[in-house]
Amino acid sequence: MTPPYAVPETGAAVKAADRAHVFHSWSAQAVIDPLAVAGAEGSYFWDYDGKRYLDFSSQLVNTNIGHQHPKVVAAIQEQAGKLCTFAPGFAIDVRSEAARLVARATPGDLDKIFFTNGGAEAVENAVRMARLHTGRHKVLSAYRSYHGATAAAINLTGDPRRWPSDTASAGVVHFWGPYLYRSAFHAETEEQEAERALAHLEQLIAFEGPQSIAAIILETIPGTAGILIPPAGYLAGVREICDRHGIVFILDEVMAGFGRTGKWFAADHWEVIPDLLTFAKGVNSGYVPLGGVAISPAIAETFATRPYPGGLTYSGHPLACASAVATINAMREEGIVENAATIGDTVIGPALREIAERHKCVGEVRGLGVFWALDLVKDKATREPLVPYNAAGAANTPMAEFAAACKAEGLWPFVNMNRTHVVPPCTVSEAEVKEGLAALDEALSVADAHTVG
Amino acid sequence: MTPPYAVPETGAAVKAADRAHVFHSWSAQAVIDPLAVAGAEGSYFWDYDGKRYLDFSSQLVNTNIGHQHPKVVAAIQEQAGKLCTFAPGFAIDVRSEAARLVARATPGDLDKIFFTNGGAEAVENAVRMARLHTGRHKVLSAYRSYHGATAAAINLTGDPRRWPSDTASAGVVHFWGPYLYRSAFHAETEEQEAERALAHLEQLIAFEGPQSIAAIILETIPGTAGILIPPAGYLAGVREICDRHGIVFILDEVMAGFGRTGKWFAADHWEVIPDLLTFAKGVNSGYVPLGGVAISPAIAETFATRPYPGGLTYSGHPLACASAVATINAMREEGIVENAATIGDTVIGPALREIAERHKCVGEVRGLGVFWALDLVKDKATREPLVPYNAAGAANTPMAEFAAACKAEGLWPFVNMNRTHVVPPCTVSEAEVKEGLAALDEALSVADAHTVG
Ligand SMILES: Cc1ncc(COP(=O)(O)O)c(C=O)c1O
Ligand SMILES: Cc1ncc(COP(=O)(O)O)c(C=O)c1O
Repeated sequence: MTPPYAVPETGAAVKAADRAHVFHSWSAQAVIDPLAVAGAEGSYFWDYDGKRYLDFSSQLVNTNIGHQHPKVVAAIQEQAGKLCTFAPGFAIDVRSEAARLVARATPGDLDKIFFTNGGAEAVENAVRMARLHTGRHKVLSAYRSYHGATAAAINLTGDPRRWPSDTASAGVVHFWGPYLYRSAFHAETEEQEAERALAHLEQLIAFEGPQSIAAIILETIPGTAGILIPPAGYLAGVREICDRHGIVFILDEVMAGFGRTGKWFAADHWEVIPDLLTFAKGVNSGYVPLGGVAISPAIAETFATRPYPGGLTYSGHPLACASAVATINAMREEGIVENAATIGDTVIGPALREIAERHKCVGEVRGLGVFWALDLVKDKATREPLVPYNAAGAANTPMAEFAAACKAEGLWPFVNMNRTHVVPPCTVSEAEVKEGLAALDEALSVADAHTVG
Repeated sequence: MTPPYAVPETGAAVKAADRAHVFHSWSAQAVIDPLAVAGAEGSYFWDYDGKRYLDFSSQLVNTNIGHQHPKVVAAIQEQAGKLCTFAPGFAIDVRSEAARLVARATPGDLDKIFFTNGGAEAVENAVRMARLHTGRHKVLSAYRSYHGATAAAINLTGDPRRWPSDTASAGVVHFWGPYLYRSAFHAETEEQEAERALAHLEQLIAFEGPQSIAAIILETIPGTAGILIPPAGYLAGVREICDRHGIVFILDEVMAGFGRTGKWFAADHWEVIPDLLTFAKGVNSGYVPLGGVAISPAIAETFATRPYPGGLTYSGHPLACASAVATINAMREEGIVENAATIGDTVIGPALREIAERHKCVGEVRGLGVFWALDLVKDKATREPLVPYNAAGAANTPMAEFAAACKAEGLWPFVNMNRTHVVPPCTVSEAEVKEGLAALDEALSVADAHTVG
């Protein structure tokens, strides 16, 4: 079949068509120069000149099963032929099956699934559920976090993307989470960091008034903010604080969930069970827009006879649900979560630690599974970030130079502020990782030039 | 290919699977009894017992091209085999083409397209653009409106679904739009209603402070609130007020757009051009979640060198864009918008007016294209609605009885408060409309029993 329009045959034509009518997210429209992409498969994509890139960013950390997984493609094609769309009010077999598989994968007793189109809407609905369940309004969230860009979600966010949309009246209070490498608490050990971060949170709750706090929301492992692995005891401590004060504990696993950390959910590493868990991205690798909230029995019970006042036209979209069913089943059949764990433990982790020793710009390496960060610094001693927080005009910074060097080597990096994240698909092979790390190694020399010592 | 799970073979099994794990929107979870749907085509769907329903609701008023349109299904299958997902930062041929076709279809000089997953996110981003473009915060929206369920969108909404999520601090002020049949202005003619509604808006702006108002958002034709066709001059008047005060005019065409009214956009009926236009639903009939904002040159220019601070993982999703390209092209090739206009003018309109004469419960008939409402009353003289505004416990009301009667006749109705809307797909045939209206006619007798006279 031929497409119903003239397919542009050069990257330049595709780019021109893009610049004519597409308004891009998070961008100055006259400044961007988007790469025209012709195709993708597994861990790679390529442009119209045939140049291939190894995707160490999994797009926006969502293609956990890589591009064009044949089982998921087939499931989408089959469901498209059967029933593309249907309203949320009906019972649809593939929707029920997706809910069953998500409920089975999520930790503990989370058992009811409310589907959305993506992560921001999942967070919006989790917050609404928490507020109505508790009858309280305030929500506590962490600095160094991202929860999405709709009004409630962006106000919860703890990175500079919040600033232009901050309403200062959203009922959000931000706190500091644990991050030993740049401790807000002057801690020197993981144990101290966990203890002090919990004490800080307790203190904040006391001063904000526990009876006014509906929820605490945390990324189980803050992702875009730096893959900040929480120290032992921290999440259990937050769980205990929430229980003590009747506060709903929301874990945002939009980025960390569905295999990214080498377990189904990041919460599984610490056996912590939230009251609400938000997901998107990895649930179906983004093949069709999908997200959702997994709900505890107690919160579901709140809406047993009282209507839940939230919804969206495409909640439980059949095509999206079919792709989630196929994705989750393929991940189980092919041991994809286990692959992420093994690759992280035996290949990425050791290699990055070795790279960190050789590069003076690498201040810290941290991660799990296929979820790793290199924290780049101007000076290993002072730990001063290679670029300042929210450095404006990302062009011509050492980080932009570093990213350009990666791309020249055929590696598509994830870059945020002074960090690069190594977040390939969960399906990545050892050979691919080695290829990518070799390119990364080269590119880090560019950053080294900006570091003292 | 067989699905990767045991397909339930009875409606009871599908329903049980649904009740086990699916959390439903806008519902009390223990009270609902969702119909299990086995399949759908064109204007019909059917359950597991083979009972067929004619869909006079187009699901949630989104399947403008009906179910399983072969060209759109084929386009989804083809794109799925090529490239399901790709991050927003790249240039992708099918994304550019979708943007071009949407820009071409939208009124006036709206030329840049920001894609979202659905309607609520479109509204969220339109509001953000307006606030940043003007440097002002307040947004005016109408009572009798629905704009979505994320935080900003639900606060803009002017129906009871807002109440549980209302933050009273969202910077929203509600006003009354024109609705002659229940005039807020004691008007007696369309002309008076338009004049007085504009005077009311002017007055409100004077007291709220024009310099503090970023935007006025209106559904071009308020949809869920009752298909309230604005009187001649009203929208042009709002446009003029916005221009005079430097206020951004947002038209929400999520429900009214893409053929529903017998033109591409409802705004085309009055040749009004907003600064921002939100769309979703009909853009691809919801085959893959998609929505967006069409942006004027002046607002796009605001974000030419200053980054636009909003985004979502699936902005410009390739599979969604492919389905939009196929949908828009099919609508043009097959004259689907023209069909909606003709069916409305020659079949639905005349038939509903004739039905209204015969049924004492029908207070008013209004509509355009395949977008019609019957306003049901207890008493034609007083115009008292058949059920009170936001009547709690919809079961056992005359409206619930009416809906049950429709379903018994094989007609799936759209019911909201005291209204039923006749909103079949734009592809509906004359024969289908006649079949549906015959069932509606029968079911209205049930409602007649609750009306005096
Ligand atoms: C932790 C987290 N939550 C929420 C979101 C928002 O998801 P979406 O972009 O699908 O709205 C993201 C996106 O990156 C995320 O990483
Ligand atoms: C006019 C209007 N705006 C916005 C929305 C919200 O769209 P969505 O449900 O896709 O978020 C709707 C949904 O019915 C609508 O009718």
